[in-house]
This record gives sequence, C-alpha cells and structure tokens, in this order.
Amino acid sequence: MAKYVYLFKEGNATMKNLLGGKGANLAEMTSLGMPVPQGFTVTTEACNDYYAKKKVVSQEIVDQIHDALAATEKIAGKKFGDPKNPFLVSVRSGARASMPGMMDTILNLGLNDVSVKGLAALTDNPRFAYDSYRRFIQMFADVVMDIEKANFEHLLEEMKKARGVELDTELNANDLIELVGQFLVKYEELKGEAFPQDPKVQLIEAVTAVFRSWDNPRANTYRRMNHIPYEWGTAVSVQSMVFGNMGEDSGTGVAFTRNPSDGTKELYGEYLFNAQGEDVVAGIRTPKPISELESDNPKLYNEFNEIARKLEAHYRDMQDMEFTIERGKLYMLQTRNGKRTAQAALKIAIDLVEEGVLTEQEAVLKVEPAQLDSLLHPQFNPAALKEAKVIATGLNASPGAATGRVVFTADRAREMKALDGLPVVLVRQETSPEDIEGMIVSSGILTSRGGMTSHAAVVARGMGRCCVAGVGAVHVDEKNKEFEVNGEIYKEGDWISLDGSTGKVYGQKVETQDATVSGDFGKLMAWADKFRALDVRANADNPRDAKVAYNYGAQGIGLCRTEHMFFEADRISAVREMIVAKNVEERTKALAKLLPMQREDFIGLYKEMKGYAVTIRYLDPPLHEFVPTEKDDIVALAKDMGLTYEVLQKTIDELHETNPMLGHRGVRLSVTYPEIAKMQTQAVIEAAIAVNKEGMSVVPEIMIPLVGELKELQYVKAVVVETADRIIKEAGVDLKYYVGTMIEIPRAALMADEIAKDAEFFSFGTNDLTQMTFGFSRDDAGKFLADYYTKKIFASDPFAHIDQLGVGKLMKMAVELGRQTRPDIKLGICGEHGGDPISVEFCHNIGLSYVSCSPFRVPIARLAAAHANIKNPRK
Amino acid sequence: MAKYVYLFKEGNATMKNLLGGKGANLAEMTSLGMPVPQGFTVTTEACNDYYAKKKVVSQEIVDQIHDALAATEKIAGKKFGDPKNPFLVSVRSGARASMPGMMDTILNLGLNDVSVKGLAALTDNPRFAYDSYRRFIQMFADVVMDIEKANFEHLLEEMKKARGVELDTELNANDLIELVGQFLVKYEELKGEAFPQDPKVQLIEAVTAVFRSWDNPRANTYRRMNHIPYEWGTAVSVQSMVFGNMGEDSGTGVAFTRNPSDGTKELYGEYLFNAQGEDVVAGIRTPKPISELESDNPKLYNEFNEIARKLEAHYRDMQDMEFTIERGKLYMLQTRNGKRTAQAALKIAIDLVEEGVLTEQEAVLKVEPAQLDSLLHPQFNPAALKEAKVIATGLNASPGAATGRVVFTADRAREMKALDGLPVVLVRQETSPEDIEGMIVSSGILTSRGGMTSHAAVVARGMGRCCVAGVGAVHVDEKNKEFEVNGEIYKEGDWISLDGSTGKVYGQKVETQDATVSGDFGKLMAWADKFRALDVRANADNPRDAKVAYNYGAQGIGLCRTEHMFFEADRISAVREMIVAKNVEERTKALAKLLPMQREDFIGLYKEMKGYAVTIRYLDPPLHEFVPTEKDDIVALAKDMGLTYEVLQKTIDELHETNPMLGHRGVRLSVTYPEIAKMQTQAVIEAAIAVNKEGMSVVPEIMIPLVGELKELQYVKAVVVETADRIIKEAGVDLKYYVGTMIEIPRAALMADEIAKDAEFFSFGTNDLTQMTFGFSRDDAGKFLADYYTKKIFASDPFAHIDQLGVGKLMKMAVELGRQTRPDIKLGICGEHGGDPISVEFCHNIGLSYVSCSPFRVPIARLAAAHANIKNPRK
Repeated sequence: MAKYVYLFKEGNATMKNLLGGKGANLAEMTSLGMPVPQGFTVTTEACNDYYAKKKVVSQEIVDQIHDALAATEKIAGKKFGDPKNPFLVSVRSGARASMPGMMDTILNLGLNDVSVKGLAALTDNPRFAYDSYRRFIQMFADVVMDIEKANFEHLLEEMKKARGVELDTELNANDLIELVGQFLVKYEELKGEAFPQDPKVQLIEAVTAVFRSWDNPRANTYRRMNHIPYEWGTAVSVQSMVFGNMGEDSGTGVAFTRNPSDGTKELYGEYLFNAQGEDVVAGIRTPKPISELESDNPKLYNEFNEIARKLEAHYRDMQDMEFTIERGKLYMLQTRNGKRTAQAALKIAIDLVEEGVLTEQEAVLKVEPAQLDSLLHPQFNPAALKEAKVIATGLNASPGAATGRVVFTADRAREMKALDGLPVVLVRQETSPEDIEGMIVSSGILTSRGGMTSHAAVVARGMGRCCVAGVGAVHVDEKNKEFEVNGEIYKEGDWISLDGSTGKVYGQKVETQDATVSGDFGKLMAWADKFRALDVRANADNPRDAKVAYNYGAQGIGLCRTEHMFFEADRISAVREMIVAKNVEERTKALAKLLPMQREDFIGLYKEMKGYAVTIRYLDPPLHEFVPTEKDDIVALAKDMGLTYEVLQKTIDELHETNPMLGHRGVRLSVTYPEIAKMQTQAVIEAAIAVNKEGMSVVPEIMIPLVGELKELQYVKAVVVETADRIIKEAGVDLKYYVGTMIEIPRAALMADEIAKDAEFFSFGTNDLTQMTFGFSRDDAGKFLADYYTKKIFASDPFAHIDQLGVGKLMKMAVELGRQTRPDIKLGICGEHGGDPISVEFCHNIGLSYVSCSPFRVPIARLAAAHANIKNPRK
Repeated sequence: MAKYVYLFKEGNATMKNLLGGKGANLAEMTSLGMPVPQGFTVTTEACNDYYAKKKVVSQEIVDQIHDALAATEKIAGKKFGDPKNPFLVSVRSGARASMPGMMDTILNLGLNDVSVKGLAALTDNPRFAYDSYRRFIQMFADVVMDIEKANFEHLLEEMKKARGVELDTELNANDLIELVGQFLVKYEELKGEAFPQDPKVQLIEAVTAVFRSWDNPRANTYRRMNHIPYEWGTAVSVQSMVFGNMGEDSGTGVAFTRNPSDGTKELYGEYLFNAQGEDVVAGIRTPKPISELESDNPKLYNEFNEIARKLEAHYRDMQDMEFTIERGKLYMLQTRNGKRTAQAALKIAIDLVEEGVLTEQEAVLKVEPAQLDSLLHPQFNPAALKEAKVIATGLNASPGAATGRVVFTADRAREMKALDGLPVVLVRQETSPEDIEGMIVSSGILTSRGGMTSHAAVVARGMGRCCVAGVGAVHVDEKNKEFEVNGEIYKEGDWISLDGSTGKVYGQKVETQDATVSGDFGKLMAWADKFRALDVRANADNPRDAKVAYNYGAQGIGLCRTEHMFFEADRISAVREMIVAKNVEERTKALAKLLPMQREDFIGLYKEMKGYAVTIRYLDPPLHEFVPTEKDDIVALAKDMGLTYEVLQKTIDELHETNPMLGHRGVRLSVTYPEIAKMQTQAVIEAAIAVNKEGMSVVPEIMIPLVGELKELQYVKAVVVETADRIIKEAGVDLKYYVGTMIEIPRAALMADEIAKDAEFFSFGTNDLTQMTFGFSRDDAGKFLADYYTKKIFASDPFAHIDQLGVGKLMKMAVELGRQTRPDIKLGICGEHGGDPISVEFCHNIGLSYVSCSPFRVPIARLAAAHANIKNPRK
C-alpha cells in the first residue's frame, strides 16, 4: 500500500518531489529541532492519484489523512472539534517548485459552532475566536465551495456601517458573533446546505480544494511561464494553527537572510505585532522593519536571528522565512530559498564563495541564466509601474521596458524621434524588413500579430530592443493612425509603455531606468566560462550587432543572415533589379552592383569579431519578400526601374506562393540562380583576403540553408568552391574556408550521414526544423496554440523551448549520423532556441560544439552552458 | 584491374547490368549459336568511370577496347582500315533498360579514304561503298562532333538538284565520290581539322560520344519518366557491320514473335530487301509484312522463324528482333522482350500460361501495373492523333484522353454541356472545391498552375477524369474567357484535346475511343489477387466514387475526405454559418444542420462498400477554404447570411494564414472546435447503426488527421468516444468502431510509439508527410523542381513516388515504433502514392496492411501489390 501522507517528523529536505518544497522544508526544520507547529503533508502522488481517479480523493488517502490527523492531535494535545481545547489547522499547497499565490490556502480549519466557543474560552478572547471563525467561513466558502467572497464582505461592510465604524478591528465580540450568524445563513442560502460542522469533513474538502487549485487557470499559466510540468502535482501541508493575533505578545512576519534586492548580508524583512499574515498583506497596518524587533524584543530577535543563520548555513543559500509569535513563543511556518533580483543573485553567489560556503561551481548554479536579462535591458521604475494600467498582454518577445509615443510607420518613427528626441514605440500589425530603420530608432515594438519567432521578435531580440508581439486585443488602423484596444482608442503621439519581459502593455508613460552591469557580473561570467563546454556565438547581421556580441563574450558569429543586408536603402534597388532580371546576364549585372556592398559588410563583420569564426548564411528568404505588395508602391517602383506597371506586377504575381515557408527559398534559390551564390562567395572570400592582409586570420564558414538532399548541397558547393578557389589562387594567398549547411529540414536530419559527406559543419536551424517537424507555421500557430495550452496538449511553446522528444530526436539522429560520416564535424545551433537556457542544456547534452543566439542573450547562453556542463560534465 | 570490355562470346543474358540489355542479349544469342555478327561490349561501369573522371575515357579502357578490337578482327578475318578487306563496325548504346532512340548510334565506322576503296573493290560495288562512307561522315560529324546534319543534307540536296534527280538512290557512284569529297571539305571547314582517318581514333571518339549521349536532355527526361537511375550508365556495343544494302539478296527487318498490338500468336513485323535500317525508318520505301518473306525466300523465312521460336522459348517472353540479310546470309542484330499494348500484355501473359511456358505468378509479373491505366480510360484514336498539333505540355496529372470545347468556369461547363451534349474541357488557373460539379461534367481539366497533388489532379484522378495540370505556358484570362499559349489565343468554345497520360495539350479536336476491359483483364487480376499480401482500398468521398472503387475490386475505403461533402450546394451555407459563428452555441446550431446530410453521406458510402471497412477522416482543410475571396462574392454572401460586409470581411481576414498548409487545420480544428468532431462522430455512428439494422455489419474507422502529439489525439478521441458510446448505448445496439490517426506530420512518425497508445490504426498521409519532410509546398514546388531535374538533384518527383530514403525512413520508424506499442496495429497509406506501383512495392516491403488510392487506380495497385509479394513474399 502506497504511503500518501507523511508526518513532518517523518520527512526531510530531500523529499521535495514527494512533499513539495513547503512540506519538505517543514520536515527538515522539524528534524533540525526548530520550533515548527507540527502537522503532516499529503503527497504530490496523492494529488496525481486524485486526477487519475477523475478528481476523487480515494478512501485510502482519506484514511491515511485521518491517521496522520490523530497523530498530530496527539502531539498537539488538542482534538478536532473539541469544545474545550479545539485543534485548528491551516491547509496549504506546496509544489516541488515555489508557485507563490497560485494556489489556495485555508486557515483556522476545525472551527465550528461548538469549537469556536472552546477557542473563545481557552484564549479568553471571544472577539478573536469569532473573528477567526468568520474568516474561516468566508475562506472555506470561497476556496472550497466557489462562493464569491463579495457576498460575505458585503455583510461585513453593512455591519460596520450599522455600527458606525470604519475598521474591522473596531467591531466587538458581539458584533462578530452576529456576523458569524449572518455568514452561516448566507452560506446555506447560496450553497443549499448548511456549513459543514464536522472538522474532518472540512479537512477532506479543503485538501480536495487544494488539489483542485493545481488545475486553476492562474496556476496553469504560471507553470507554463516557468516550465513546471503539470505532472508534478502539488502536495498539501496540514499544520497546527498558531496565532499571531492573540494580543501584543503575538505577532507575525517574513524575513530574508540577505537583502533580496541588492544581496547585502543583513536580516531583511518585516513584522507586525498582534496580526495574522493576512493583515500584513492587506496593507491596512504598516509592518515594521525586522531590525526593530531587536529593540522591541531582543530575546525573540536573537532566537529568530539564530534560526535564520542556521537555516542559511544549512541550506547554503539565502532563505525566505515566515514566522509567527504566539504569546511570546516563536514558531517557524516556512523556509525556502529566497527569490532575488539578478543583481542580488550575483552578489549573494559571489559573497557565499568568499565566505567559504559555496564553491565557484555551486555559485554559478545559484544564478538563473534567464535572470540576467534584466541586467542587460532597461527596466521600469518599480514605483512608477505600480500606478500603471495594463491595457493588453501579448507575447514577451524581446525583454526590457520601453516607454514612448505611439507611431504606426517606420518613417514616422524616424521623423518624430528626430523632431524632439523623445522616445517612440512602433505599433504595427506585423513588421517587415522594410521597418528595420524604424525599429532601430524606436524604444519598443508592439505587433498585433506574429509569434515568438516572427520578424519583429527576431529582429528586436537581435538589436536588444524591447518587443511585445502578437497582442491580439490590439486592432491597428494604420490609415487613421490609431489603434483600438477593448474599446479605447490610442492615436499617434499618445504614450504607451511595453514590458518585453512579461508581454504587458501599459496605456501611459511609465518611467524606465537603464540597464546596469556591475563588477559581480563579470566575475560570475568568468567563472561560468571556466566551467562550460559549449562555445557561445551570436547571430549578427551587421558590424553594429557584432560589436555588441563581441562585448558580451560571443566567440564568433554563428549566423549572419545576408538578406538583412539586402534591405538597406542603398541596395534594395539592386536586389530588385536582380529579381526582375529576365536572364542570367541581367541578373549577373545586378549582382555586380551588390558585390562591393556585401564585401564591405563582411569586412566589417570580420573586423568586429577579431579573428573569431564568422558563419555566413547565403540568401534564404523567398524573393517576394523583397518586392512591395501595395499597388501604389508597385507603380512607384516600376517607374523607378523603367518598367511598366503591368510587367512588374506580373513578375511579382509570379513570385507569389501559397506557402512561402515551404517555397522557393534557401538552397533552392542557389540551385535556380547559382550566380547569387557566386556573388556571395566572391564577397565572402575577397573580404577575408582583405582583412587577412591586415594581419587577421579569418576562416569564413559558408553556410547553405534549407538543404534536404546531398546533391543539392553538392551542386551549390561546387559553385562556391570553384569561385572561392579561383579567387584565392588569383590573389596568390592561402585561405582556409569551410562549406557547411543548416539542418532545418526534417529530411536533412534523417539523411545527415549522406549530407555530412559534403557538409563540413552542421548548424541546426531549429526554427524551421520545429515548423516542419510539427507542421506548424510560426506565423499562424498563435491562433490555435492558446487552445493547446488551456487544453494541456502542450506544456510550452515549441518555438521558445526545443521540443526535446520530437525535434530533439531528429537532432540527436543528425548528430549521430553526421559523426558517423565525419567524426570531427562541427555542430552548432543558430535557431532562436540558442539563447534559451533549457534548450542550451539540451544542446550541451546531445554534444553540440556551440550555440548561437541574439547578442543580448550571449551572457545567458554562457551561463546556461556552464550550468549544463556542471550538471552533466562533458568527457 | 577491372574488366571494362567483354567480347560477345564472354557474356550472357544475366549480365544485363554490366553489358546493358543489347550487349547481354547479343552475348546470349552468340552462346546459343545464333548467327550474330561478332563484336564486344564496353561496360556500364566504363561509362560511370567516364563521368567519374569528369568525362574522360581512361587509358585503361582505351587499351581494353583495342584488345577486344584485335580479337574481333581476328574472328572476322578483317582488319580496321585494311585497304583490301576493311573491318567496319557499328557503335550502339545499350542501357540496362531499353531506352529506344534516346541515345546515339554510329554505323559504318572504320571507313576512311583508303578503306572505302577496299570496300568498293571487295563488294564490287563502289556506289554502295561511297554511299556508306558519306553516311558515316555525316553521322560521325553529327553525333561525335556536334555538327548540324543540315550542313551535309544541304550538299546532298544541291547534288541531286544538279543531277536533276529526286531520290538518293538515283545518284551514281561518281556522284557519291564527289559528294564524299564535298563532305570532307565541309567537315574540315566547320570543325577546323580534317576528318579523322584513323579508325581507332574514330572508334574511341564514337564510344565517348555514346557515353556522352547518356547525359543528353532527351535521355534524362526519358529516364525520369521511366524511373531509370542516372547511376546505371549505358554500355556500348561495338559490332561487325553487316550490310542489308548489298543488293537484292540482302535486306533488313524487324519482327515480333507475337502481335504487339493485340497479342495474337503470329510472327509480326516487316522487312525490306536491299536496304539498311535507316531506309526502313525514313519511310521512303514501304516495307513488306514479314509473312511475305515466306514466299519471297522460304529458306530464310524458316531459318528466321526457327530462331524467333527459339528466342521466345529461351527468354519465355515475346521477342522484338532486328535482323539483316547480307548476300543471302541471315544475321541477328538484336533481340529483346518486346514492348506491347496493355491489351496485348494481358493476352500474351495468359496465353503463355496456357501454353505451359509461364506459371501464373510469372504471367502476373509480365504485365506492368502502370500499363493498366490505358485500359481504364478513354484513349485517342492513334490515326487521328498523328495529325494533331501539340500546343503545350504539362503534368500528366490524371490519365486518359479528352477532347472538348474550352470553358473557363464550372457553371459555364454545365451550361454548355447541357445545351448540346457536346463535350467540354474545363480550363482554369487552379481548381477549387467549388469547381467540382463543373469537373464532373467536363471530359478533361487543364490547369495552368498546381502539381501532381493539386486539387485538380487529386479530384480528377478520383473521378477518373483526364487532367493535365500545371501547364505553365498557358495563360488563362478568365475575365475575357480566353487563354493564350505561345502567342495564340483560344476562346471559349474552341476545341482542344488533352492527353492526361502524357501531359500533352492539342489545339484542336482529336477523336477519342472509349476504354474497353476484356475478359483477360479479369483473369489476370484474379491471379494477382491470389498472390498479393497487401489489401487495396480506395479513396472515395461519395457513393458515386465508392461504387466505382468497389467494382474495380477495392476492399474498403481508406480515405473519405469529409470536407468534400461540405462543398455541395445544399450544405455550403451551413458550413459557412458554422465558420462565422461567434460562439459554441451558434456553431452547434449550424452543425446541427449539417448532421443529417453527413449521416446520409455515410449511409450511402457504407451501402456501396457492402460491409467493407470505411475510414472516415474528420474535417481537415483550413476553414478559409470554405469562404469566398473576391469582394463581390463576399458582399453577396454577407447579404445571404444577414451580416454586414465589414463583419464578414473581418471574419475572413482573421482566417487568413501565411502558410495555410502549416496552419489551423486537421486535428487542430477539432481541438479548437470539439463540437465539429462531435457532430461528425454522431453522423458516423448513427449511419452505421442505421445500415447495420438493415443487416450489414459496418465497423467504421474514424481517422483524426494531422496529429503530431499523443495528447492532441487523446483530446479529440475523448470527444469521439464519449459521443459514440453515448449514442450506441442510447440505441441499445452493439457497434464496434476504431479511432486512429494519419501519420503525416514528421513528429507523428518520430513519436509513433507514443501515438500508438491511443491510435488503433495508422494511415500514412504521404502527401503532407512528403511536404513537411522535404519542406516543400506541393503548390509551389513546381517552380523550382524543373531545375532540380535538369541539375540532376532529383531523379523523380517525390509527390509521384515515395522518397524511400527520407520520407521512407520516417515511415519505417513509424511502423516499427507503432508495432512496439501495439503489435496488431493496422497500417495503411492513403496518400496519392497509394496508387503508384513503385510506392506500393515499398509499402509492401515495409509491412503495411493496405494501400488506398483513387478508384481508377485500384487495379493498378492490386497488380503492383501482387508484383511486390511475388518478388519479396511476405512471411
């Protein structure tokens, strides 16, 4: 028979999976001899059993709860429902990972019409007893029976009005007795049955309610954001009640062993005498800083301080603790590793090493890679943010905070920014490559369509610009220069603010503060670099981004998207000439115009990367992305190009594709137009020769995208090698270069042994690989993925975290097959996943050589790579 | 050292891969003691070596050729270039598979200014000698040196004009000596060097030219059409010349051992005295039927007849032979299994069994599955076809021949057909489901866009209608009711004709003849059914197609695309109501209107299939396929539906997808709108209950499309099972049904072990699986696939034949993983590949249970399945 319930004294800190964080730590504190109100924990397995049995708590579990209850009553020397010495408990959720506020809590359970009298007599405090009872009724009704709290609050308000008082505390015991009576009537009226008087019934109902709250929408969303599997389930801790509101010798508080904002080594927190936790949260009374406890009650302070010190030493990490003082006696209700800001995380980790508590490796593991984001991007001023109103929420596509005036076109963004230097926020349905200059001058970008790998998201991350994408509630009307959101209209020039880290949109100006990087950052990153096995490169398309990447520690460029260079104003017309060219000669002529510019681009990149590898991907997108779609623009372009509108429109029509993602792009372009690959090769090689003459030693890596078949690669590689070798020979120099491919078509992964015959490196393009493996278009999936989350089909967005089971299986196959053919093949990843810590860990585990990500994610990837190698060291 | 050259007497018929068909059969006839002019064969490996060495014939091979030449000279008792007794040879290509006329041939090689005199003296026939020499010069110049034949033909014409004669034969020896002189001068003038006088040089050049011709565009196209791998290479046979033009005791001819048109057992062919093969082909003189040889020269006839009889018995198949008579002596130049019509193939196979020559299994193998097509569809009258002009060529999307008047809309097709009953051909850019009724009344369909699996192609194959798709040269102007092709305009009402088996379009009326199926067909198919292991089902969406399928021997329906039912005029409005519904209630109301119609559809299908399994796929396409795209139509629809244009347009805009192939479709629709799956389940189950009450025993198979993740399937399966079980229980009956899934997303194949936990069957949707594995959109790939063929990246269209290496690897994984979880899982295929013989063989080999294809391809699949199992019997 499975054991579903553990007394606190039966458990310990290692049993987190079974007892949840809260339950395990209560057990651990018990075993450390600390003053913990005793109780028991119903395990996560019981929760899973509840869901497996279609939301029924089995009799077996009920029996075990009752046994544990009896044992706890014995320890407490009290009895459930006892009219003289009643036993009361709290019922709290506790998952493996902390999910603060996501699930429900019930306090004072065990009160009924009889035991309330016992409590009143025992404490000699009827006011306290009835106040506890009315709180319990309200909480039970709300949490267990799904009855709106407002029903009861209304009665409380009426009572206060009748008594002519303002504060709850001004009501006396008789008032509260009357109120309890009203609550019980209201409960029965709404529920159709009387409030349960049997504490055991109350308890099982409460445990069930906590199990049920594991599946509430709030918890589900939190889990998805934090990658907590639904399958983990929650445990439920049932703990003897202690009361901080039994008079001025009682109290309650929370404290951290170090300052969670900046990491300073100090006891940090607050407390309140004669109060329960709720009162602190409600904000009616102002709690005192914990330091004042020292003068208020030095003995208690020292006792608590001693416990705090012990807990930090025991857990070897900063602790976040809750305590209650009941009639002068200190009780510990909870301890856990404390949440902290990135800045604090760095300082605490480094201090703990200096204090001899942690090794450098352990310190590195104490800092969450994703946290670093907040150090690298502007953030809102927290005080200012409190006042701000969220008007919509989208995808947190690129982190950081932005505030500025709404503009709807890239041109207008430039104009308005130039006019007065005040920030602007670019709002569009979706961005296209033509918007890039507008994006550069904007503080943030909001799009109403598009996902985590949409154009706006990818480009914004690349330039470290804040972006909230796919805000479905925002309806953009570009013509009238306004957008509508839930009935409100925002016009050009109105202020809005974006939080790219949470996806929230605020309908007003919110003060921001700049990113700051301290010395601690450099120190910890240096440790991380010591411990990682993966190289970290950056995706950068121009010298500006390359410079950022280099400064953030990138060890090369893993992806230079050459097409991004094609959109710049001085070359787009040559690109378009190339596209409308009717034959090889015309096309070659147009390409010749692009050659010197591409060569300069590459020279710039090589120079910024100071000899590190630069991987250059050849032209990838379908050609129609380079031509306008609106008739007016086509007419204008035709005139520019000396063509008739009809001829140009026909060319554009011919470029139309039903599914451009699966169309004429990538290597397919080079197969049709080998002259493009020829020009790009010439630029890559001539640029390398030029900078190497200045003393560098660049080894370019030429990357052919979208290969699915060896012969495709061979065809284009022959063009590349012929061109490169001729130029190298003519220049009379020695230049090494590599030709490789992206693995982004499922077939390429399946045939990787074949493809490795000619590919000198692989780089996983996990954006496309995810699209094709799932059969999802990243541009369209937003529509139905929401249903996939609410219906628990997907736990997370496969474009945000590599799908390790499916896409990952293909990646593992490709790694294995590729190495069979070419044991020393260089393996990297340049999809958006390259900057996602979970995905970086996966890449480490399957044996890649490097990850490549947006410049601003380079530190995150470095730290994630260190975590991965510390957890699972590479031989 | 590899052996690259074999004397005829060193080889035999089993060495086809090395010696090519021609070389192997010449060797075999030699070993049978038949009169074969001796020679040798340069192997296919030598050809591959030539290409591997970048088009150079290695010295090693040259040496081996010279050795074989010396041995052959010895046998012939003649010497190359001998002024008295010169040795002459023919040089012919010969691949493993017959590729008639695709590569080049050179006759009379060995002639030069000296040996021509020897030939003249030896034969006492200078006219013959110089005529042979001038033909050789012309052929050598053309084939080896790429000099236009016209240059020499012009000189010949001038000479005839000067001599005042009409026929070549009217020129005398002196004329020809003069002409040879002119030819040699012309050759030198055009080539810049003298005609090679050294026969050994001529020989190596000629062999090289034959190798080279393996790679000519004609040969490449032929190979792709006939699935002959480029890697096979061609052999080259060098054979002593014999002359059928040495006088009236000489001659040449071709004959079959049975009539290749109808299969009658008779010596069938024709011959010509005093002629070379060329003369027969040129058509200047009319050859005589072979039967006349019996009276002309009974001894020769008997000798030949005896050889023919022996060869057929030896090869156990109808033979196609070439022979030459030189001065009364019979020489065999070639034998091979003869090409034949489908009708003849059936008769010959059955007759050979009755004659005791073949077993039934062997007879089944003698009929090519693809050939059956011509029996099942109308064909052009061959005589009428000779006169017809090809105006364009497209994809041979659905076989058969059609002639009719051009129409551009489905409505017009119906009107014109109704008016006078004369046939119409529907011409469109692409068809959409709204065109179906027009397609039904049309004799053929031409589209200017779209591939082998476009809507037009799939639907036309389903209804057995002729279709030529993706005719890029045709520019359709629907507004003006005309199309333009290479500058010519065809208007509504003009006659055109389509050959759906070749993809040819004719600009006029061409007489067709109906399909005819003889008793032989039934007999052979019955044998085929005995020997196959795979079941054959059909893809059918309505009772009409199901009936055809049943009559062609389908053992069930493997794919009923329910959405095709949604387009019929009486239900499209309910479908549209469902789409614009703003909530579940409205949607459910619209679905309720569809329910009775779907139920009737399924009742009809079940009845036609008489108890065989019927697999019903739930709604698959993106919803926007059901709404109009043109503003006028939207305005009209909005009016119909009582909506404003703006509201409807907005709904339609919201349905827009960037890549609909990867969008909101398949199981994703059922996840978002489970009420659709509910309605479809109700229809499927209620229909089954209804027909089973009438004494049938239908077991419906419910197929969820586009699944990529187990939980997706589980979610929808729960809806299906809940609905089905409730209805079954309410009806108080017993009804078994299955719920399975398509495997068409790469991830589904990768995770097949997981998915098989809930899928009771798999059906491979190889259209989508091919699209996603390759990252090709079938609608767009036409644009670049042509380059892939000419650049030899792809040997064939992966949408026509399963890509066994890539897509096939995923299929094999899925079969293996699926069986791990569920050993008895039923496995089928319902993609377009199910009717392709090569793909059927693959499906057999990987262990599928059945293939499902268009009704008209069912016989082909049955025969292909028999071939597969005879070649590789399933245990």
